[in-house]
Amino acid sequence: MGTKTAVILAAGQGRRMGGVGPKALLRVAGREILYRTLSSLRDAGIEKFVLVVHPQYIPEFRGFLENHGFHARLIPNPAPERGNGYSLHLAREAVRGPFVLVMGDHIYGDGFVEEAVRGRGLVVDPAPRYVDRAEATGVRIEGGRVIAIGKDIPNPDAYDTGFFVLDPTIFAVTAALAQTKTSFELSEVMAQAKPPVHTVSGKLWMDVDTPADLKRARAILVSHAIKGTGDGIISRLINRRVSTRISRLLVDRVTPWQATWATFGVGLLSAGLNLLNPAAAAVLYQVSSVLDGVDGEIARASMRTSPLGAWVDSVLDRYVDLGYLLSLAAVARFPTSFWPVVALGLLGSVLVSYSTERFRGAFGEDMYRAVPLLRFLPGKRDERILLTMVLVLLGFVQELFWVLAVLTHLRVFLTLFLGCRRKTA
Amino acid sequence: MGTKTAVILAAGQGRRMGGVGPKALLRVAGREILYRTLSSLRDAGIEKFVLVVHPQYIPEFRGFLENHGFHARLIPNPAPERGNGYSLHLAREAVRGPFVLVMGDHIYGDGFVEEAVRGRGLVVDPAPRYVDRAEATGVRIEGGRVIAIGKDIPNPDAYDTGFFVLDPTIFAVTAALAQTKTSFELSEVMAQAKPPVHTVSGKLWMDVDTPADLKRARAILVSHAIKGTGDGIISRLINRRVSTRISRLLVDRVTPWQATWATFGVGLLSAGLNLLNPAAAAVLYQVSSVLDGVDGEIARASMRTSPLGAWVDSVLDRYVDLGYLLSLAAVARFPTSFWPVVALGLLGSVLVSYSTERFRGAFGEDMYRAVPLLRFLPGKRDERILLTMVLVLLGFVQELFWVLAVLTHLRVFLTLFLGCRRKTA
Repeated sequence: MGTKTAVILAAGQGRRMGGVGPKALLRVAGREILYRTLSSLRDAGIEKFVLVVHPQYIPEFRGFLENHGFHARLIPNPAPERGNGYSLHLAREAVRGPFVLVMGDHIYGDGFVEEAVRGRGLVVDPAPRYVDRAEATGVRIEGGRVIAIGKDIPNPDAYDTGFFVLDPTIFAVTAALAQTKTSFELSEVMAQAKPPVHTVSGKLWMDVDTPADLKRARAILVSHAIKGTGDGIISRLINRRVSTRISRLLVDRVTPWQATWATFGVGLLSAGLNLLNPAAAAVLYQVSSVLDGVDGEIARASMRTSPLGAWVDSVLDRYVDLGYLLSLAAVARFPTSFWPVVALGLLGSVLVSYSTERFRGAFGEDMYRAVPLLRFLPGKRDERILLTMVLVLLGFVQELFWVLAVLTHLRVFLTLFLGCRRKTA
Repeated sequence: MGTKTAVILAAGQGRRMGGVGPKALLRVAGREILYRTLSSLRDAGIEKFVLVVHPQYIPEFRGFLENHGFHARLIPNPAPERGNGYSLHLAREAVRGPFVLVMGDHIYGDGFVEEAVRGRGLVVDPAPRYVDRAEATGVRIEGGRVIAIGKDIPNPDAYDTGFFVLDPTIFAVTAALAQTKTSFELSEVMAQAKPPVHTVSGKLWMDVDTPADLKRARAILVSHAIKGTGDGIISRLINRRVSTRISRLLVDRVTPWQATWATFGVGLLSAGLNLLNPAAAAVLYQVSSVLDGVDGEIARASMRTSPLGAWVDSVLDRYVDLGYLLSLAAVARFPTSFWPVVALGLLGSVLVSYSTERFRGAFGEDMYRAVPLLRFLPGKRDERILLTMVLVLLGFVQELFWVLAVLTHLRVFLTLFLGCRRKTA
């Protein structure tokens, strides 16, 4: 049976942040640090939460918990100047059995908490990617245990992630320290307790001390919010580089739904603009393709993804493509004999999405995960739209529809072929 | 903890069927009766199977079990003429603790076994819908127990379904009967044991004694194989009535995949036929719409459904629609100005499917189940195709594309609207 209780230390007043109150309640990329920690812990099976907080901020914490439907016991620490070791000591009455201990000002990304709760002792990272090692707390390890810990350890074996899995014997150490010292930090507790270490590596974790950290954290969370699968080459090389910058600017100001509808608006605008200026419309169509990444990035970075958002966004994308290509064909004054090619190109664009989405409906599995080879086939939306812009700007409108008509249906055929091969193998 | 063992009595030689061997191995609607029973029992949590069989047919049973990856202990009954009560008696060494007892020549439909295994004693049905009551075994019940059982009970309280949940005390009864009688049936065992009864009503169950029973069973299984959700009104009123008749003829001869590809071929043929005779093509298009039900019916009736089949079938349907409507528009010699309407109609047909299927991909849930109101909106494929045939035969081809262009996109809009309302409510 896993650990079911977590103690979160959040008694600081955020002085280095400019006195904005507890850092745990700061929003980073649209969500409070505490929201991120509590959600991840809950997903990892933690059921009982204990928060050590400054008495002055109890109303803020209560309001936060209520708003988000979390339940937690609040333990006031009237003397935060006595150090976070003392904060831990105050939690002793609220826990029995093994418990998780987490710093309230640390951000943990996807997968970190899940791995960390399985360990015992101090969770360390030998090669942290997102923290300044000069600022971080180093750990010297021998025989799988902490033998020294602190900011001034030369060439440490690993770094303290601010995440622990402890048991109540730790309170014997804190009790002794609390009697002899006015102030003591967790690192002193650990230096005495010499707990085992548990390594979690390659996952996002960072602490937030200064406004600069906050900005960096936001950028990192947004760039981690790029969907893993299904991105075409254009998306990876061009669109995401721009869209993540936009998402960084907007993630604290705009909801995913607002981004979805704004992107849809830009797409429809590009369709309408075909009637006035096809070249400008083509550029705007590509802009809408870039913007199309923003809603998902904001949603993932701010932990607000919803199947409803993904569904609506997908259907709206189909209508943007339909609107743009149809108005492009309408102003191109093609002969009647060419319209079947236009229709094939239009339908192919939808059928590429239909065939992969219907696969997910049938198997409950992402098609690009099931058939990784598909990722390398050209014809995804980001690629089609860039190609569209380029060919329109070069004046090859008729050629564009030929290419779409052939490319998309070829892709659907290969999708069927590879899907069948994968699922009957 | 539920019952984990099942004893299946299959020692008969199928004399009334014309000496075709054990009835349990007869194929009904593409699957052996025993396959259906073992699958349903396995789905209901049964892990251990004991089959009482005629020694002559042990190789056939072994071959069957191996082919389908079932494991079962075979117990030979060298004297099947001693009655099925004696067959049960022979199973006594192979069971300990409570066990399920099932007749090898009974067919149980969706949900029956799941409900039946939860009971204790004799599973009875007060109002059997699929058996001839004059031929069935009646049960007289008092105080929740069997007090009399047999084919000659006047106005019985319920009927014996051939399904029992027993415990080893029953073998005291069979042992006594085996010593005193040369032959005895299960009904005699039950008349003495007076087990409790457990009622399962409204579900399909039937026994197969004669070739006529076999044919009836096939028809019933096919008509039960109509998908519950997503059928439009045309499908329910017209298409299914024809397609189930075709499925009945084909279910023992044709695989679902063969039906899928044949239907696709007919659809493409209707597209090609537009170039020669649009009226005949329209009729053939409707024929393909009727045939489109057959693969699924065969697959469900023969327990061969596969997500792969459903996926490929859906994508092929889109291509049939694309092919038919595009060739219809091509031969109609519309002016260029009308082609955007054609394109809208074509795309709308795909987007109706896209929006509902993408919903399933997002939520892992059938859209028609989540938003039952959608079932009553017109615009599903069966309805579109019948409407297409009628309008083409009446000469309203241009009007057809107008109707499709408006109807389909309106339906998509309502799909989005109702989906959002459902999921944010």
